[in-house]
Amino acid sequence: MTAEPAAIQPAADDLRAQMHVIGAAARGAAVELALASAKTKAKALRAAAEAIRRASAEILAANAKDMEAARTKGLNKAMLDRLALNPGRIDAMGSGLEAIADFPDPVGRTLAEWDRPNGLKIARVAVPLGVIGVIYESRPNVTADAGGLCLKAGNAAILRGGSESFLSSSAIHTALQTGLRAASLPEAAIQRVPTADRDAVGILLGMNDLVDIIVPRGGRGLIERVQDESRIPVIAHLDGMCHTYIHAGADARKAREIVLNAKMRRTGICGSTETLLIDRAAAPGMLPPILKDLIEAGCEIRGDESVCKMAPQAVAATPADWDTEYLDAILAVKVVEGLDDALDHIARHGSQHTEAIVTEDAAAADAFLKRVDAAIVMHNTSTQFADGGEFGMGAEIGISTGRLHARGPIGAEQLTSYKYIVRGTGQVRP
Amino acid sequence: MTAEPAAIQPAADDLRAQMHVIGAAARGAAVELALASAKTKAKALRAAAEAIRRASAEILAANAKDMEAARTKGLNKAMLDRLALNPGRIDAMGSGLEAIADFPDPVGRTLAEWDRPNGLKIARVAVPLGVIGVIYESRPNVTADAGGLCLKAGNAAILRGGSESFLSSSAIHTALQTGLRAASLPEAAIQRVPTADRDAVGILLGMNDLVDIIVPRGGRGLIERVQDESRIPVIAHLDGMCHTYIHAGADARKAREIVLNAKMRRTGICGSTETLLIDRAAAPGMLPPILKDLIEAGCEIRGDESVCKMAPQAVAATPADWDTEYLDAILAVKVVEGLDDALDHIARHGSQHTEAIVTEDAAAADAFLKRVDAAIVMHNTSTQFADGGEFGMGAEIGISTGRLHARGPIGAEQLTSYKYIVRGTGQVRP
Repeated sequence: MTAEPAAIQPAADDLRAQMHVIGAAARGAAVELALASAKTKAKALRAAAEAIRRASAEILAANAKDMEAARTKGLNKAMLDRLALNPGRIDAMGSGLEAIADFPDPVGRTLAEWDRPNGLKIARVAVPLGVIGVIYESRPNVTADAGGLCLKAGNAAILRGGSESFLSSSAIHTALQTGLRAASLPEAAIQRVPTADRDAVGILLGMNDLVDIIVPRGGRGLIERVQDESRIPVIAHLDGMCHTYIHAGADARKAREIVLNAKMRRTGICGSTETLLIDRAAAPGMLPPILKDLIEAGCEIRGDESVCKMAPQAVAATPADWDTEYLDAILAVKVVEGLDDALDHIARHGSQHTEAIVTEDAAAADAFLKRVDAAIVMHNTSTQFADGGEFGMGAEIGISTGRLHARGPIGAEQLTSYKYIVRGTGQVRP
Repeated sequence: MTAEPAAIQPAADDLRAQMHVIGAAARGAAVELALASAKTKAKALRAAAEAIRRASAEILAANAKDMEAARTKGLNKAMLDRLALNPGRIDAMGSGLEAIADFPDPVGRTLAEWDRPNGLKIARVAVPLGVIGVIYESRPNVTADAGGLCLKAGNAAILRGGSESFLSSSAIHTALQTGLRAASLPEAAIQRVPTADRDAVGILLGMNDLVDIIVPRGGRGLIERVQDESRIPVIAHLDGMCHTYIHAGADARKAREIVLNAKMRRTGICGSTETLLIDRAAAPGMLPPILKDLIEAGCEIRGDESVCKMAPQAVAATPADWDTEYLDAILAVKVVEGLDDALDHIARHGSQHTEAIVTEDAAAADAFLKRVDAAIVMHNTSTQFADGGEFGMGAEIGISTGRLHARGPIGAEQLTSYKYIVRGTGQVRP
């Protein structure tokens, strides 16, 4: 499973057979994991954290090789940054696994219970989803995060990282296996696709008898491919086309701090604000200092006509700007005529990820929170808080913009299903 | 929308255009419905119930025409029975809608709420799913049940009933529209595909921009087609391959009553028991009276070798019997060597729908309830209780054997999603 990639160049049929062996082993491990105690799973997670820290040198060495190959291939700076590991990032992986270990066990929770007039006692109890396939791009730390979250929720994981991070992910995966062994859990609980061959993804997406759910993490291209090809249900987010709306009743200081943070804290994450909307009544007073802060921080402004009049540094926005997830130091800015206009703009251009209003007007805030259709709606705070860790979930495997199963940050709790337990004393149905 | 089917024979492009008009209208209605108050929705449901009762004569006349056409086509007895309406069934549709009206509103429920150390207040609040496409076969009452449940949960519904029930469903649909008008809700909240053309299903399954979820109700052929073709997430159950397991520690009287009910109360429903498992230790004492009851009630027994030795009326089971959902007065019966053997048989042959154990041994019951992977697991009661109404959900649109989103009976609560509401006082992310 952890052989060097260069050694493996199987023919298509061999790869298919190999993937099915992995799937069958995962299915078997899932049965064991579903019954594993909270203590056992936590032990495995802590042992994995320790193993990652202990293997720091090996992981960094593997990452150095991946980085070298990536530079040769000409990967861009953002991709190289996502691929790069350092002692801090390795330690963060360990801490992440420990945080997941400390979290309450999501399996076995009683989600609801009630009695029927005929004496039947019904309980809805959380159970694992089963086997989860995680397909990700170049960030090697997803190996630890995704493997850890799946394990916590009693699921077997099949991880398929990007070919660029193959060696780094292998080294991290080896440490996860050490954790599983320490807790006497099956090593097949967290498996990696042992080849960088891209055909493996297509095979995985067709294994609907052995895999219960697919979680893609990556760019739009990857996620669209997965949604198109998969016969297996997918939990995915496509775009984080997030808006911050400054209502006429906003506090100017809060608005200024929130917008700067929402755009510029980290521009490459899905919860960063891509379009700023501001009420016409508030614009003359509040917008100039906001734009000043942004421009000083290195942000490009693409404004509508009103904005361009107010700020000579602004570039005129084109229609495409209202639909562009820049993931960069660029902000589209538009003056709106009030709450309804803002809601309409968000309904037409938002991606149902995260939307925020800044206002001291409680009625306007309530209307916004109620009427905006998005996984996360916010009042007087930064869209950059759209994150499982910030929500107190310990960690996340992604943020879902779909409406089914789980919406918003996907933590361990969201990687469970449930079953009904019905206890009777001989009741028969009339 | 309620024109006579004979008048509508659109070319494929016309049909596609027509379906997209329906989809767009549903999307618009969904926005309104999401904000409709509990009172307004309940008013519409009660008015619809009244309209159905008032239109009883028209509905029966339409149904008589459907029945005549179905007899001419040579539909079998079971299908004719599902298609047939009578005053009692019409009244039951009305009562069903009233029960849904009386139920607590599932939208706006706070599912969880917590505060973060930085003062952010996070709430997870139920919201509608959006637009639901319901594809069903010949039972016309699904029109009322599905339309009512979708409305209750704030969803717009696009209903596509079987061509055999076209006129009956049209008449019921007209009454639902009366209910919507009485509450000033948009008529597009519950639409019907206004043609019996089968191509409409294929078009509906591809409308992933306008439809959020597909619920197929019908036989295996329909559900497999939907799962194969749909680009939209599907909530479906495939098979109800349910087992009742009589453990050595069972109470003989309970076992006898439960098995007779689980198999014979209604043989055509998905929660009926298809295979009986019994511990070898219990079989000599308990099985003969159980088989006697079943045979007297007209049930055919297909037994393994041990069973055939005990009951001369039993037919020898073939391997296919352990995987057959008879939906008929036939029961496969197998002697097992104990709990592990029973669990193993269920894991290999069950369909993750409903599984029951009969025993007075609490430890054996707990092990069974914990280890069986199914939407519903039961102790000392009849698998025929697998039903949203019997669970106290008011009504159900089906029983899901999938693991994502909702599992088991799908009532109004299960037709919702959620969003996170985050309230801050100016917090920015460090």
